[in-house]
Amino acid sequence: MPGCSAPRGPHSHSIERHRGLRHSRAMRRSEKLAAAAVLALACPGAAPPEADAGFWVPRPVSGAAEPSTIVKEAAASDWRPVAPENLLLMDLADGARVAIELAPGFAPVHVANIRALARGGWWNGAKVYRVQDKYVAQWGVNEAPTPLPAGVVKAPPAEYTRPGAALTPRARAFPDSYAARTGHVDGWPIAWTPRSGEAWLTHCYAMVGVGRDLAPDTGTGGELYAVIGHAPRHLDRNIAVVGRVIDGIDALAARPRGREALGFIKDEANQAGIARVRLAADVPAAERPRYEVMRTDSDSFARYVAGRANRGGTFFNLPAGGVDLCNVQVPVRKAG
Amino acid sequence: MPGCSAPRGPHSHSIERHRGLRHSRAMRRSEKLAAAAVLALACPGAAPPEADAGFWVPRPVSGAAEPSTIVKEAAASDWRPVAPENLLLMDLADGARVAIELAPGFAPVHVANIRALARGGWWNGAKVYRVQDKYVAQWGVNEAPTPLPAGVVKAPPAEYTRPGAALTPRARAFPDSYAARTGHVDGWPIAWTPRSGEAWLTHCYAMVGVGRDLAPDTGTGGELYAVIGHAPRHLDRNIAVVGRVIDGIDALAARPRGREALGFIKDEANQAGIARVRLAADVPAAERPRYEVMRTDSDSFARYVAGRANRGGTFFNLPAGGVDLCNVQVPVRKAG
Repeated sequence: MPGCSAPRGPHSHSIERHRGLRHSRAMRRSEKLAAAAVLALACPGAAPPEADAGFWVPRPVSGAAEPSTIVKEAAASDWRPVAPENLLLMDLADGARVAIELAPGFAPVHVANIRALARGGWWNGAKVYRVQDKYVAQWGVNEAPTPLPAGVVKAPPAEYTRPGAALTPRARAFPDSYAARTGHVDGWPIAWTPRSGEAWLTHCYAMVGVGRDLAPDTGTGGELYAVIGHAPRHLDRNIAVVGRVIDGIDALAARPRGREALGFIKDEANQAGIARVRLAADVPAAERPRYEVMRTDSDSFARYVAGRANRGGTFFNLPAGGVDLCNVQVPVRKAG
Repeated sequence: MPGCSAPRGPHSHSIERHRGLRHSRAMRRSEKLAAAAVLALACPGAAPPEADAGFWVPRPVSGAAEPSTIVKEAAASDWRPVAPENLLLMDLADGARVAIELAPGFAPVHVANIRALARGGWWNGAKVYRVQDKYVAQWGVNEAPTPLPAGVVKAPPAEYTRPGAALTPRARAFPDSYAARTGHVDGWPIAWTPRSGEAWLTHCYAMVGVGRDLAPDTGTGGELYAVIGHAPRHLDRNIAVVGRVIDGIDALAARPRGREALGFIKDEANQAGIARVRLAADVPAAERPRYEVMRTDSDSFARYVAGRANRGGTFFNLPAGGVDLCNVQVPVRKAG
């Protein structure tokens, strides 16, 4: 049987190819593991033992660097700025601020809508009208009876996935319960299907999506939600994901839960007020907060992922040898 | 090449065996998928396409039943009661109640300690002194300077894993980023390693663990925490997990976050007070709340998992075809 004695056989080349998305080192490592497992199965007697046959097995690494140390020591070139056009600043009536980075590369029409809604004062005086435990906090203005500001597309396309061909994500070596492949690109957590070439933003903690009614409605962007619980990844590809809360998520996550079905809050007096929502680009430069996101194609980020997958130090006795996509929150820092 | 034309080859028998943990139907299905993928790789030209080679690919199912409907329609025999000896009732000073089911099958010494601590009044007047966003809420009394009630074992063994041989979990068909196998047994989310035969409770949302100092200390149980964010599965096998909040998790999850490092709350005035903590067994029968947990070996639960993995109805356009272990919270209901 060809290829039995080594982890690279006649089919290993085909394993290392796939459509659309370029390989990173992490992906190649993952594929080598997969290839090794496959060959072990195809070659009776080869390691790993048959008890684990067909299943990914974590390979913990001892002595991985502490994620917090990696973040602290990352070079200036390992960070990219958040563009003011992509930074949405939501000021709650109680003074808390929620900062959201928008993702025009994944949902361009919805993001353009959100910019136009912010510039039209759409959310000023709106409410956080839903807080569902282990799920989402949601805010905005009912779109049906309210005239939309100029420039808002009323029925945006279903920007639930995008072609992956132009993306070069850092792929992960760990399997996922929802998608064939997961990883990060340009600071965003994504999943993709090599077969179809589609990629999409995933509903990790603090990700922001567009509330909608039933299909084929996609929502304009006028009602938004943020994930405040365990990642509801079943929403992936069913909703337009438009960004991530990069600062102040606790102002949404720590709110009292709504008592109606789905966490809706009946009494307006119990809904948190929103003073105003602006684009950072529209805030005077001197008042404009500046954020930086770790470049997910940097070596620092690769070490960060490895460190998250293999926690060590004095507390952890046993590194996991794996990490969920949504437990690798891309580091953010305030700049200037 | 033997086995190329069918998904059962000479090695399929060995795939279907593993040590310690008995097979469920879901596990066999998963293994068949894995075997099919393996054979597809080993046999050039076979499906699935090479683009997905070596990776699990979700297989969405349309028309799966709604999880909420399954719960509503489950027969009385699909539920097991929570034993009063395993039900810890924490009453906060503000009147909220947190109900925790204990898991003596996984951490018997720690659970015995927790019973003795409750009976000794250990937590009456204690505080919720840590609330870390996307992570844990933690409460209790510092064990170092405080005399322990009678019967509390001061240095319990590291009950981080247990032998899986006696367990018959319902295994899942979906891969996991942390463990070779995951599933549910007796109402608990677990992971296990067929090779070592070890099984452990996983840090899903609302799971409760024992705060500890550095190894080899395991904590007595006098300081506890509950998961209030995305499952920190890297804690698995590094801490004694002792139960799950089955009611009232929002009384912990919706609390303001601590502003110190790791979410600690410096000012005692900002720490939520705990009025008392009792075992339900010690509460007069007439006042005793009764809960039931869905039997995870029931057909209803199997359908529930399938429904969680394949959300449908009028809202979801695309079922995921997979679901994370921690997005399958085992249903709980109040009885009587």
